[in-house]
Amino acid sequence: MANPNKMKIALLGGTGHLGIGLAIRFAILGHEVIVGSRRLEKAQMKAEEYNNILKSLGEKARIKGLANEDAASEAEISIFTIPWEHAFSTAEFLKEALKEKIVVSPLVPMEKRGNAFYYTKLPEGSAAERLASILESRVVSAYHTIPAEKFARFNESFEWDVAVCGDDERAKKIVIELTNQIDGLRAYDAGPLAVSSMIESITPLLINIMVRNKLKDLGVRFV
Amino acid sequence: MANPNKMKIALLGGTGHLGIGLAIRFAILGHEVIVGSRRLEKAQMKAEEYNNILKSLGEKARIKGLANEDAASEAEISIFTIPWEHAFSTAEFLKEALKEKIVVSPLVPMEKRGNAFYYTKLPEGSAAERLASILESRVVSAYHTIPAEKFARFNESFEWDVAVCGDDERAKKIVIELTNQIDGLRAYDAGPLAVSSMIESITPLLINIMVRNKLKDLGVRFV
Repeated sequence: MANPNKMKIALLGGTGHLGIGLAIRFAILGHEVIVGSRRLEKAQMKAEEYNNILKSLGEKARIKGLANEDAASEAEISIFTIPWEHAFSTAEFLKEALKEKIVVSPLVPMEKRGNAFYYTKLPEGSAAERLASILESRVVSAYHTIPAEKFARFNESFEWDVAVCGDDERAKKIVIELTNQIDGLRAYDAGPLAVSSMIESITPLLINIMVRNKLKDLGVRFV
Repeated sequence: MANPNKMKIALLGGTGHLGIGLAIRFAILGHEVIVGSRRLEKAQMKAEEYNNILKSLGEKARIKGLANEDAASEAEISIFTIPWEHAFSTAEFLKEALKEKIVVSPLVPMEKRGNAFYYTKLPEGSAAERLASILESRVVSAYHTIPAEKFARFNESFEWDVAVCGDDERAKKIVIELTNQIDGLRAYDAGPLAVSSMIESITPLLINIMVRNKLKDLGVRFV
């Protein structure tokens, strides 16, 4: 059984704000964090950037960069911090490396029509289910509603809830425990992977509420 | 222009906890509240029950009961506090009475499969859009995520957000203002009616989270 106090976690893509926010916080918590990218040089550049953030926070530099395939092979948990349009082709490519491992989907398929954002329903029901249909992995759906820009700043506090779903109960439990280790996040089991569209679709809703009410960095709490 | 400080509000069906919670609070705020039911006698019985609650809270009895058709004719705003399976046939029946008026849809189509609840996607996209396709009314979608049982108790406080959507901007604004008059509720414009499924589907998600985490009365806040 994996020890949720020290895990090898890969941020695939790892370039967006969610990737930064998770990488830095998991590294500070003592996990082994790997940033993956399509090209090794880009991954190493990213790792250096993240290590500079760690140093600026008075922490030891300890994040390494690897090509996505090597990052996925080495990690116990791989988080798909990749724009959803590119996530599925990346998944095809990483299928062998991710076999039977825990894969986290924060993917939210959405589109803008007129002046509103809409959740894009996929034939599989959700992005997480599509990922699961491609991979032979233990897919857990999480982190969709975290306001990523604020999450990538490290001098601000927040209190956000994270709805987590998945069909592999042990994998889901590990992701919930990891999430609860992060100050200000509180994770809840929301059921099987098939409920993922109900979580993913909160993200375009939050964006619409922010745009129309001139608000920023809205997350969600269940109270 | 309607005066949102004194409106005629009908709770159609009005029998569930959401109906009670809204009826009592709107009455106390000074609005004219009508409880509608299919049969006049049942509506009057309900009104008496609600008036007894008002009296127990030290308030004046002032809610009246009418058959749904008369309630809809008399009211400026009709709220469909009816189980979603029956709401659409009721809407057909009330089409004339509700013509061009404000109609509020708190409807959430959902079903249980296995041990989880799922949002039921309707061909129109959402329950609110289906209601709008039947009626020639100004349909506003709201109140889906209010934990109704707690909302029907009047000695407890809460802080819940209400996402509101609709295509008639004036109607939506009135519903937002009315909602913000209720202590503990905060309403947000979430966009056109077409985003309603993203709001409605939060309700089965909340139920799943409650069931799996042994929690009660979970609403939502955007923070």
